[in-house]
Amino acid sequence: MKLLVQKFGGTSVADADRIHRAARRAIRAKQQGYQVVMVVSAMGGTTDKLIELAREISDDPPRREMDMLLTTGEQVSISLMAMAIHAQGEKAISLTGGQIGLITDAAHMKARIQLIQGDRLRKELRDGHIVIVAGFQGVDNSGEITTLGRGASDTTAVALAAVLGAERCEIYTDVDGVYTADPRIVASARKIEQISYDEMLEMASLGASVMHSRAIEFGKKYNVEIHVRSSFTDNPGTLITHEVKKMEEIVVSGVTLKKDMVQFVLPKLPNLPGVAAKVFARVAEKGVVVDDIIQVFDDKGLASTSFTVERNDLPDAREVVALIANDFNLTGILCNDPVAKISVVGVGMRSHTGVAETMFKAMAEAQININAITTSEIKISCIIDTEQAEEAMRVVHNAFDKGNLE
Amino acid sequence: MKLLVQKFGGTSVADADRIHRAARRAIRAKQQGYQVVMVVSAMGGTTDKLIELAREISDDPPRREMDMLLTTGEQVSISLMAMAIHAQGEKAISLTGGQIGLITDAAHMKARIQLIQGDRLRKELRDGHIVIVAGFQGVDNSGEITTLGRGASDTTAVALAAVLGAERCEIYTDVDGVYTADPRIVASARKIEQISYDEMLEMASLGASVMHSRAIEFGKKYNVEIHVRSSFTDNPGTLITHEVKKMEEIVVSGVTLKKDMVQFVLPKLPNLPGVAAKVFARVAEKGVVVDDIIQVFDDKGLASTSFTVERNDLPDAREVVALIANDFNLTGILCNDPVAKISVVGVGMRSHTGVAETMFKAMAEAQININAITTSEIKISCIIDTEQAEEAMRVVHNAFDKGNLE
Repeated sequence: MKLLVQKFGGTSVADADRIHRAARRAIRAKQQGYQVVMVVSAMGGTTDKLIELAREISDDPPRREMDMLLTTGEQVSISLMAMAIHAQGEKAISLTGGQIGLITDAAHMKARIQLIQGDRLRKELRDGHIVIVAGFQGVDNSGEITTLGRGASDTTAVALAAVLGAERCEIYTDVDGVYTADPRIVASARKIEQISYDEMLEMASLGASVMHSRAIEFGKKYNVEIHVRSSFTDNPGTLITHEVKKMEEIVVSGVTLKKDMVQFVLPKLPNLPGVAAKVFARVAEKGVVVDDIIQVFDDKGLASTSFTVERNDLPDAREVVALIANDFNLTGILCNDPVAKISVVGVGMRSHTGVAETMFKAMAEAQININAITTSEIKISCIIDTEQAEEAMRVVHNAFDKGNLE
Repeated sequence: MKLLVQKFGGTSVADADRIHRAARRAIRAKQQGYQVVMVVSAMGGTTDKLIELAREISDDPPRREMDMLLTTGEQVSISLMAMAIHAQGEKAISLTGGQIGLITDAAHMKARIQLIQGDRLRKELRDGHIVIVAGFQGVDNSGEITTLGRGASDTTAVALAAVLGAERCEIYTDVDGVYTADPRIVASARKIEQISYDEMLEMASLGASVMHSRAIEFGKKYNVEIHVRSSFTDNPGTLITHEVKKMEEIVVSGVTLKKDMVQFVLPKLPNLPGVAAKVFARVAEKGVVVDDIIQVFDDKGLASTSFTVERNDLPDAREVVALIANDFNLTGILCNDPVAKISVVGVGMRSHTGVAETMFKAMAEAQININAITTSEIKISCIIDTEQAEEAMRVVHNAFDKGNLE
């Protein structure tokens, strides 16, 4: 029997009306002959409220207890969803992460899924239930309650779709799909009909916040078609899927922008084995998450290393940089704060030339200076000043839109 | 090692300050050499809010899903309590009903405890933790989440005290003990220092709402000393314990009042075997909870049967009475609505005479008419008009207070 996983985010279950609306959607799929598994997030705002409660109690709450606290948010919404479906005359049952046997490691607040025991789920589906699963949560091997990190209900949904062999995983959210650029910045941005996992992964990590990266990785690994769409309309959204030939014809699928970053430039590091390792060991010690690393050697064999971090890691990053300066006797370290990263993403780049040129030319014409450049097989990113960021997004989007941007 | 169970009700954990206050109390007990198990209710008002959420979704939510929903209230408060203790520098761990292996039957919303697997609890206590247990909840044999009915966190606490062999079970609440009468009605009411399980059971079922009856039954059955006291002061409260000789010297321990009741009188029922059984089978069919049944035969061998129900069962009770009237061709059925029940309770009654006389005389002098009388070994109850109820409580309390009411 064909099976559908439908995931509803916090805004899609924010009140009784919306819960009933989501319930209707699941019932409709069931009436169309699908077995339906719903994955539900906490009602909009709930998780923030719980975090605020914890903060009133303690500055440094144990991570285990945070998981005990936060998982109640999804437990509330799954029970309400089951009530809504029941009230509309269909059979439904809600299940916690523990009850479906979603086993994780013991890393509270950022646990990783190790195993999903599908037995209970399959039994309830066979019994004709719409099964409503609490997203974001699991249990470790000793029955301790864990969470997968914020936004990880997407991951739960895609993982369940993989385990159950779902035809598709539908992600219902408050936007109607993935766009070629942020429509709030670029008026001419268009919805992307279809995008590859790799492109979507790049876009997610480069600033498009529609979906959680780990969910996309899961989708790619287990070959799960993901349909990101609006919970408020019936319009088709964006299909995230394996790369198909047609995608290569599109040079650039999207333009993304990530703000609130800081760039450090460490000039004149000695060109010796192990130097970079030492530098980034310092960074890792402090738990600072580095976005991009760029290193270039000059004609004297000295390296100029640039790395970017998110602005909220800035105090820690400054301490780290001070240590590194001391380790290597560095002077003249630059800190560009704040900076932004503009990126173009597209699998078509592999087979098309001139992408970088088009991008740089568009920015040059708009007098936008580029602080650093980094590329992968399917994206080009530039670090630029924040105040020029939105203008950059518009001109770059425009440059590719004239061509064959999807 | 000596062990203490401390139970904190909703008002005692209603905000961050109160949670920290409860945490301090547990830590103090630990520093005095006790192993400490805390049982915590949902934060004041939470359960009502959750019920309201469910009502917005459905008029008739499945009981299983109500349990899924309501148990989140306690899960929030246990995690916050663990954070508070941790913030004050002690080791603590929160555990759900499922995690401590509190196994119940499958009767959702009114489940009964079948077994408590104390292993996990004992392990955490040995490791030096203050263990914080979610009251009110358990799991059935197949891992489904159940609740024990409203107010049942008391039951969880006393059951845990029994299983763990606690020295005492402390019930922290918003009143400072059990009173000889409701102090809001009888200004001269006094706190009772010590009361027997049987008296407390009668008082709880007769209108003193300080503690949950099932918890007192558990206490009696497993010989657990229960100390009901205020969470806002260090004053001793009321000790509920096995009967001791001294208690018999006190004729009446307390006067209780239960309002919002309705009395039906069925006159002229035939005096034949099985008649009463048929009458109350009708009542049971409809699920109406009967408070008191009184039956008297007149000189013609016809029975006059009176029974009382709570006012919110009135619509159902009326239907039942109509059926009974039809079964037996009855006419002249009386319905006294509303009525109240005033009771005096005391183990001393067993060995003292004149208790009924004192009670009836006090009411007669105040021109209070008695609709019905019912007694047990340790209590006398009278059904009276509601508008005279508070006056009755005052005169009866006063009558015994002049003597040797505790």
